Amino acid sequence: MSVGKKKGEVPRRAFVNSVLVTAGAATAAGALAGYGLAEPAAGTEPAKEIVPFYGKHQAGIATRQQRNATFLAADLASRDVATLRRLLDELTLTAAALTRGDPPPERDSGVKGTSSLTDFGTGLPPARLTVTVGLGPAVFAIPELAARRPRHLTPLPIFDGDALNPWWCGGDVLIQICADDPQIVSHAVRSLRARMPGLATLRWTQYGFLSTPPDGGTPRNMFGHKDGTANPKPGTPAFDDIVWARSPEEPEWFAGGTYLVFRKIRMKTAEWDLTPLDEQDRVIGRRRSDGAPLGASAEFDPADLTARAPDGKLVIPADAHIRRASGMPMLRRGYTYDYGIVGGESHEHGEGTGEHGHGDGHKNHSRLDAGLLFCCYVRDPEKQFVETQRMLAEKDRLNDFIEHTGSAIVAVPPGAREGQSLAEGLLRGLG
Amino acid sequence: MSVGKKKGEVPRRAFVNSVLVTAGAATAAGALAGYGLAEPAAGTEPAKEIVPFYGKHQAGIATRQQRNATFLAADLASRDVATLRRLLDELTLTAAALTRGDPPPERDSGVKGTSSLTDFGTGLPPARLTVTVGLGPAVFAIPELAARRPRHLTPLPIFDGDALNPWWCGGDVLIQICADDPQIVSHAVRSLRARMPGLATLRWTQYGFLSTPPDGGTPRNMFGHKDGTANPKPGTPAFDDIVWARSPEEPEWFAGGTYLVFRKIRMKTAEWDLTPLDEQDRVIGRRRSDGAPLGASAEFDPADLTARAPDGKLVIPADAHIRRASGMPMLRRGYTYDYGIVGGESHEHGEGTGEHGHGDGHKNHSRLDAGLLFCCYVRDPEKQFVETQRMLAEKDRLNDFIEHTGSAIVAVPPGAREGQSLAEGLLRGLG
Repeated sequence: MSVGKKKGEVPRRAFVNSVLVTAGAATAAGALAGYGLAEPAAGTEPAKEIVPFYGKHQAGIATRQQRNATFLAADLASRDVATLRRLLDELTLTAAALTRGDPPPERDSGVKGTSSLTDFGTGLPPARLTVTVGLGPAVFAIPELAARRPRHLTPLPIFDGDALNPWWCGGDVLIQICADDPQIVSHAVRSLRARMPGLATLRWTQYGFLSTPPDGGTPRNMFGHKDGTANPKPGTPAFDDIVWARSPEEPEWFAGGTYLVFRKIRMKTAEWDLTPLDEQDRVIGRRRSDGAPLGASAEFDPADLTARAPDGKLVIPADAHIRRASGMPMLRRGYTYDYGIVGGESHEHGEGTGEHGHGDGHKNHSRLDAGLLFCCYVRDPEKQFVETQRMLAEKDRLNDFIEHTGSAIVAVPPGAREGQSLAEGLLRGLG
Repeated sequence: MSVGKKKGEVPRRAFVNSVLVTAGAATAAGALAGYGLAEPAAGTEPAKEIVPFYGKHQAGIATRQQRNATFLAADLASRDVATLRRLLDELTLTAAALTRGDPPPERDSGVKGTSSLTDFGTGLPPARLTVTVGLGPAVFAIPELAARRPRHLTPLPIFDGDALNPWWCGGDVLIQICADDPQIVSHAVRSLRARMPGLATLRWTQYGFLSTPPDGGTPRNMFGHKDGTANPKPGTPAFDDIVWARSPEEPEWFAGGTYLVFRKIRMKTAEWDLTPLDEQDRVIGRRRSDGAPLGASAEFDPADLTARAPDGKLVIPADAHIRRASGMPMLRRGYTYDYGIVGGESHEHGEGTGEHGHGDGHKNHSRLDAGLLFCCYVRDPEKQFVETQRMLAEKDRLNDFIEHTGSAIVAVPPGAREGQSLAEGLLRGLG
């Protein structure tokens, strides 16, 4: 499977919207309009790094992945142009301010003297905060927007084996909030939510983290496997080709946008830990010890999908995950999550107790919720995600150990110019 | 309220069990036995810092607070000395290895070829990981242990207004796992849980974070207030007096131990954000803007509890939080939590969907779960926690905005010497 590069297409300018400024110069950062350095200068305090909100593309996509993320889904209070416009205005102003380290603009809540939490911020520098906003398929059910619908924005199908929880699915708006600090993420979520009353209602949130070895090694996932993917490199033609929407394939307003596919994938860690190591390796097709493909000697060796053992069996089994998933061109930007067994909302009672028992180890095992907040950015979700996911759903040894419990797809508008709101082009000329 | 310092008592040696070693020297760190530097040397990579597990006191108490924490409660599979001893052996060996950056020792799981996740670790340095183990009141219902029960280990009372969820309360064993990296915490929790089958069952977990401004300023809590507390300073006589158990007040084996009181406190952020700022300030008794006590000019000014405004009213209201809570001598080591609206386990259905609605903004508002994982270490929980909490529960303007939903108390044994297990003294001479 590949995303075709049209003949004669001119490689576009390398573009990475990460730039480094000092905290003191924070308020001027927006003016840099998204052109700058891909990596921080040595010796700069990472917490003070700023990723400009305004630019050709939205931030949080080509941005070097931050350590913490929350995905927030919300539904429009009313599916009409005016509500959507007001919501996008609020989200834009709030995100632009927070990402440069400023408090969000005041909003009249209608309650005398009300002053939102964000007035005084967190006392923390913005830690590369990005806010990335996408619009779900239902938004384009608004009559005036039907003709402007991004061409590939279709609700995801139900795949074999999906165990979706409707509480963790869909949404008219999906916002990815990332930073190198969890309180910055929490505060941004809170500030964005504070703009929603009357315009949108919160649907679900999911929180994850990503810890990268300081030596630059590949992070391990919740199954202990190195989960480093051959992501395209920002600023290269391959990246542009895989990620960014273009016209005339897409409506003019959507050029420079992309699609975000979100899947909450629960990983059955207890079952995994009771599976012998050599079987684990066959499930993935790589050795857990060093990440090498089976039959190869090092992590970055190519996987030989045709190699057979002396007994004639395929070294990398026919249903191994890396065989079934191979060749999927996408920008992956997922986060590990581990909620432990924080649940229990449905078991409230009137009186507390310090000691009486609810302990049932097996029940609690099944209440563990940990895994992957899969997140990918692609130019064509049908070709780049759905086709591969159908193959995986049909046959993948890993399916015994995972389940997809949440799902969403949104069209991510291009970046905004300073003074404009996100998706300005979508709403241009409408009431 | 004060914790009396006995006349003629000799101040004990300053003791802080944090020591800095390079990652390369990690495996030797355990031998340092807990005596070392309180603060990291300049220029050392914080992720590689190691806090020794072995020492006079358990680590994770006097240790400078880390950025991430999980509290894990479990119940003994069988309440007898042999089970407790085996569990403590497993927890000790696992914690000692993980905290120095090593994989935990192998354990025969009884399943051929089974190899736990921790064999290959995370690829991350230990990031000041600490594992602090406490024993709940029910443990001392084991007949042989009754005479050795720490004197102040009594189940917490139900306070006025408590809204405890039994799923988040109690536990025979409570383990505090802290590190400067969320994956290190997640992996340690997983590794500790992997030692429990047959010995203990998981009861609940709670995860929190703490972000400290890089300039050393006071962190803000989920209500946007500076929540810096006058914690005692490790290594001072005041600290020792507030935190560490001593004989003959306590059984000999428990000298050098302490008590941990855990409360999950939900903060009603939506209600708070709709409260006028000046009323918020009166609720707390401090200005949210700069943290100064009402009537004072700067954050660290003393609060004048007797000052009255020209109209004769108390400047700091009679039911303001800081007035009601004043004078509580304890070591606070709490963490902020923000679970968003991750719930929904009880709403599963057979077939997934990308778009059909469940959105009810008001319901979702009430499903938000964010607040404080209150955690304090004290030498006498009745005097240092319960008495003050009774006062707060009886009258505190803050009670309209918070609810206590989880609760636990444990006795935290002193530290272990290398080669011994935690609570060795408790089990000495028993079958």
